[in-house]
Amino acid sequence: MQETEIIWSETEQKIAHEAFLKAYQRETTSLIHQIRVLASEIVELDHVWNLHDFLSARRHQIDGKYDYLNPARQGRDLDQYSALIFVFSQLVKEGWLHLDDLEGLDQDKLAKIAALTRM
Amino acid sequence: MQETEIIWSETEQKIAHEAFLKAYQRETTSLIHQIRVLASEIVELDHVWNLHDFLSARRHQIDGKYDYLNPARQGRDLDQYSALIFVFSQLVKEGWLHLDDLEGLDQDKLAKIAALTRM
Repeated sequence: MQETEIIWSETEQKIAHEAFLKAYQRETTSLIHQIRVLASEIVELDHVWNLHDFLSARRHQIDGKYDYLNPARQGRDLDQYSALIFVFSQLVKEGWLHLDDLEGLDQDKLAKIAALTRM
Repeated sequence: MQETEIIWSETEQKIAHEAFLKAYQRETTSLIHQIRVLASEIVELDHVWNLHDFLSARRHQIDGKYDYLNPARQGRDLDQYSALIFVFSQLVKEGWLHLDDLEGLDQDKLAKIAALTRM
């Protein structure tokens, strides 16, 4: 792994944090909308449990993806920062983040994130 | 345990089945309404997970309570029938069933169910 993936300057950490907040806000807003639609379409108990299964899966995914924003995770280790490259590429692929939102990050990081979104 | 609690005539089994269907229908209708209200009130992700927790609990309760209606449980044993007394008293207590819905059951069973609802 290149050094630039491991070292995140204070400015980069700030950009990363703000990008996460944007993605989180977008995904959350979309999820809430989706739940309202699903809830309005429920006509039998099976649909209720489908909604439950859907929420179980989404909770698991969202908890994992936005773990960086978890206030309990104060002391971040290097592994966590290097994982951000992958999480950001995932968020871009899913449409919750645009590469523009990451402007200001080191060029190597941006290039790697962009490359991963095409995989 | 008295013999009347263990033995359920065919007529009684039919009454029990219909009573279960009524309670199930009422509780399900109410649950769907409740979910729609909860979903319409969601404004942040925490509310989504509150809905998820609520559904997890309700699923567990409902699966247990209406196990009698589960088609996979064809061959019912005596224990299951004797448990109906308790399940019916629970459904009456919760308001999903009225004692009238159980009319036609043996008097001993009805008396026991009515007594349990006052506990």
